Amino acid sequence: MNKEFLEIAKNAKIASINAQKLSNDIKNQALKTIAKKLEENKEEVFAANKQDMKEAEELLKKGEISQSMYNRLKLDENKMRDMIQGLIDISELPDPVNKKIFERELDKGLILTKVTCPIGVLGIIFEARPDVISQISALAIKSSNAVILKGGKESINTNKSILGIINSALDSVEGFPKNMLNQVFSRDDVKEMLEADKYIDLIIPRGGNSLVQFIKSNTKIPVLGHADGICHIFVDESADFDMAKKVIIDAKTQYPSACNAVETLLISDKFSKAEELLKELENAGIKLISNPESWHKEYSDKILAYKYVSSVGEAIEHINEYGSGHTESIITSDKNNAELFMDMVDSAGVYHNASTRFADGFRYGFGAEVGISTNKTHARGPVGMDGLVIYKYKLRGSGDTVIDYVKGEKHFTHKDL
Amino acid sequence: MNKEFLEIAKNAKIASINAQKLSNDIKNQALKTIAKKLEENKEEVFAANKQDMKEAEELLKKGEISQSMYNRLKLDENKMRDMIQGLIDISELPDPVNKKIFERELDKGLILTKVTCPIGVLGIIFEARPDVISQISALAIKSSNAVILKGGKESINTNKSILGIINSALDSVEGFPKNMLNQVFSRDDVKEMLEADKYIDLIIPRGGNSLVQFIKSNTKIPVLGHADGICHIFVDESADFDMAKKVIIDAKTQYPSACNAVETLLISDKFSKAEELLKELENAGIKLISNPESWHKEYSDKILAYKYVSSVGEAIEHINEYGSGHTESIITSDKNNAELFMDMVDSAGVYHNASTRFADGFRYGFGAEVGISTNKTHARGPVGMDGLVIYKYKLRGSGDTVIDYVKGEKHFTHKDL
Repeated sequence: MNKEFLEIAKNAKIASINAQKLSNDIKNQALKTIAKKLEENKEEVFAANKQDMKEAEELLKKGEISQSMYNRLKLDENKMRDMIQGLIDISELPDPVNKKIFERELDKGLILTKVTCPIGVLGIIFEARPDVISQISALAIKSSNAVILKGGKESINTNKSILGIINSALDSVEGFPKNMLNQVFSRDDVKEMLEADKYIDLIIPRGGNSLVQFIKSNTKIPVLGHADGICHIFVDESADFDMAKKVIIDAKTQYPSACNAVETLLISDKFSKAEELLKELENAGIKLISNPESWHKEYSDKILAYKYVSSVGEAIEHINEYGSGHTESIITSDKNNAELFMDMVDSAGVYHNASTRFADGFRYGFGAEVGISTNKTHARGPVGMDGLVIYKYKLRGSGDTVIDYVKGEKHFTHKDL
Repeated sequence: MNKEFLEIAKNAKIASINAQKLSNDIKNQALKTIAKKLEENKEEVFAANKQDMKEAEELLKKGEISQSMYNRLKLDENKMRDMIQGLIDISELPDPVNKKIFERELDKGLILTKVTCPIGVLGIIFEARPDVISQISALAIKSSNAVILKGGKESINTNKSILGIINSALDSVEGFPKNMLNQVFSRDDVKEMLEADKYIDLIIPRGGNSLVQFIKSNTKIPVLGHADGICHIFVDESADFDMAKKVIIDAKTQYPSACNAVETLLISDKFSKAEELLKELENAGIKLISNPESWHKEYSDKILAYKYVSSVGEAIEHINEYGSGHTESIITSDKNNAELFMDMVDSAGVYHNASTRFADGFRYGFGAEVGISTNKTHARGPVGMDGLVIYKYKLRGSGDTVIDYVKGEKHFTHKDL
């Protein structure tokens, strides 16, 4: 591990230990101070962002970045206002740390308590979107986790400016540990992060499939996130025509590059208005394709693959085979089919008569979102603050020993308090 | 992936999908049928075990396996009775699947439900202990997960015999899916398992440090378990002498090869009876060593490393640096020091005036244990059935679309029901 990175990682670990006793008051004070300082210094951030935009314009001309990446890079007054409001919103959420999950008497005077605690050090790898840095910082502060951030190189000036302001705000908050929020910049630093399993407890990549796959293949550290968003809508035989049309158009066109946009439409071959439905979708500007090569593609565009299936069972099988475990919806008037679909489809979100676009932490009412996970462990679906904590067991006794129970001289009571 | 393994993995995946709708009744019937069939066919198992023991005797003579491994291999009437009782006990636990975690109105008529569901396919790699196979099978059945088991080659005949009886029992239970419990045997199969991230959702290794490290380095699949059990006891200045002595002797000698046995003793240099305490520990047959090389060693024997520290702070620092995050205890009469220790030590179990040996799923009242985890995500400490489930989000609407909320024509109510 290179010396510079090792230093950052070690200090982050120490910060995370010191953060374990952080009070909710200090954390909220930190969030509000950051909001204030960002407001006061926003012109500095806009100037840094302009520099990034200028460099990105060159890259755009050379075709080295896409138009959509260029667009995401821009930080305007609206985004800044949202960033600042986000900090305030997170300060108003309940403290996720030190929540009692259960308290149990193992025996008279021997009390076991399961309490939430921070995970430790998070490694966050994200592409060019400068608003991510304040959102992740706020979530980390509120959940008492230290972070090491690695943003896209296209937004390097903006990121440096924002984190600089955040850290100078934190310096002014009494009792807030040093080195909680750290930033690294190079591609080599990503490799260092992946090897730092002694210091980093969880990696959260926010980026495309190849980034996520690369990370999963090259680290012992748990990874939280999703590689693909291949979401499905199944139009059952008994679907209401207008409802199907409305939900599909929403799921495909309202924001086609979102990971929760629908990619594949499955239609019951007994649905009588199928042809009419497809025509209406084309009228809404959706390009339809029917090609087995599309079953595992995420277009992130107004392109929709479609396929006829003979039953809800075949729809379920198709989704479990080709889906990415993100979010799927059935449009049907048949309650049994709806329940069967929701039970048997193995995805984070299983919907009945609703757009897949609802898969989102804010829409679910979590107040903030770390990202969306297609993991089958730890956290699944939109991940709120709950995904940034784990728990520990505290046991309080008065000299209790196991041998008494092994010998049968004492007996566990196992009484929940 | 070799064809034979691929077949097993694919079938396990299909079984896991079919198991998602398994009722608690069928699962419990399955567990009771297995218990009955094991009782009826135990002589067959004993015969298979005798064959393993005979071969192990040769290996023992050649020094290729240890005496303790040889001992663990033996399956006698007592262990068989415990195995059978374990099946019955697990059938009596509540169903961990399909539990409602919350139900929330996102808006009128748009209801989000978070419910527990099985993880999917578990890959279990364990060393020679034939009773593990029935315990893991029972936990998998109750939590509706499929498993692929790879046991130690020393117990191959016993494992084959037990799983054969279990699977023939399951064949007789109507409605129980095929291919839920699968067994593989070769070292190559372990490599196949680690690469099968399309089919296997969680790997649980039950074995030594090198096995666990090898697995973590060679798979994209999440791994649940612990590599080391370097547990600490800190004797604070105000510790009660008799209590300290009693707890340390229990934690070191009651079962020295357990992962929750204490390995390092930290003593406040202001504790006046330190020398007397060390003498008493030697009298109890404990070999004491004071050598920095011991700080990260797990002796699994009646050997105890010790070190003087100047404060509870130094004890916390030592543990966070050299510990394995398993279980640590402070012996003190000072409540503030106890709470500081429990807050700041970053381990799965943090105890006050109790033996580290309490870190165990049965002692915690979980009814059954998958193993002990030092992970910082998903499940930590002794893992009960809760560690074998995850959740999904079910959303029920009536044609709801996101665009109405984006446009501000509708507003989320976010009301918990």
